Amino acid sequence: MDTFFSEALKEAEIGIAEGGIPVGAVLVHNGEIIGRGHNKRVQKGSPIIHAEMDAIENAGRQSVSVYKESVLYTTLSPCPMCAGAILHYGIPKIVIGENTNYLGAEDMLIENGVSVIVLNDRRCKQLVDYFISENPELWNEDVGAS
Amino acid sequence: MDTFFSEALKEAEIGIAEGGIPVGAVLVHNGEIIGRGHNKRVQKGSPIIHAEMDAIENAGRQSVSVYKESVLYTTLSPCPMCAGAILHYGIPKIVIGENTNYLGAEDMLIENGVSVIVLNDRRCKQLVDYFISENPELWNEDVGAS
Repeated sequence: MDTFFSEALKEAEIGIAEGGIPVGAVLVHNGEIIGRGHNKRVQKGSPIIHAEMDAIENAGRQSVSVYKESVLYTTLSPCPMCAGAILHYGIPKIVIGENTNYLGAEDMLIENGVSVIVLNDRRCKQLVDYFISENPELWNEDVGAS
Repeated sequence: MDTFFSEALKEAEIGIAEGGIPVGAVLVHNGEIIGRGHNKRVQKGSPIIHAEMDAIENAGRQSVSVYKESVLYTTLSPCPMCAGAILHYGIPKIVIGENTNYLGAEDMLIENGVSVIVLNDRRCKQLVDYFISENPELWNEDVGAS
């Protein structure tokens, strides 16, 4: 699990290096990363390419049989859009780096039977802390707060 | 309302003309279409570009103050991913063409205070009927059923 989570964190670091919001994710199927990505609000001017969406997008078209054996690793608690994508495709498990800077729709996932693990990873939180201190408005835009 | 809905239907028609899944959407702010789009699973090999997502994406980065005065028109009941996007950005109202070929996460929207109007539009249903009869597997893939 640590290896996959580290890859999600690497994606978050790539995001911040690109001037973007530092959230990363990887989609893992049977012990192999099939999709990886990071938030691209800044890079692509996109309101929908959150890290989880980017990882799912980059995994390409998959059947439900693949999704239902997959795990999504993300550095930040997923917003309702990303949680909805997880539910739509039946991904059964998500590993989350932190949920203190933003608490997303974890309840919605749990209510629908998704296994939710929160790591409270210090590095994820520090990276977002760093970003928010410099870009509070951008952060609020991305989490739908302003 | 009819004009905006007609534009969503036009997008669905463009989708089918491209060989894609015939679902279209427009995002309307203060009486003006600010984003429009259609399902691009086939065209872009994308699992995330549903019609509603495409319309939100094509509207670009917007503030919550814009979303909260917007209405999303879509030809088909929104899946959990698209419903989640609506909730994340606080879009208060959705007008849906039909929900018989696929009933999405309307309950989730209603529970969270979104105004949901279902038109039961015959044309939307017929267009999807036509598509499903020729492409049942593709349809099931898109709605997360296979």
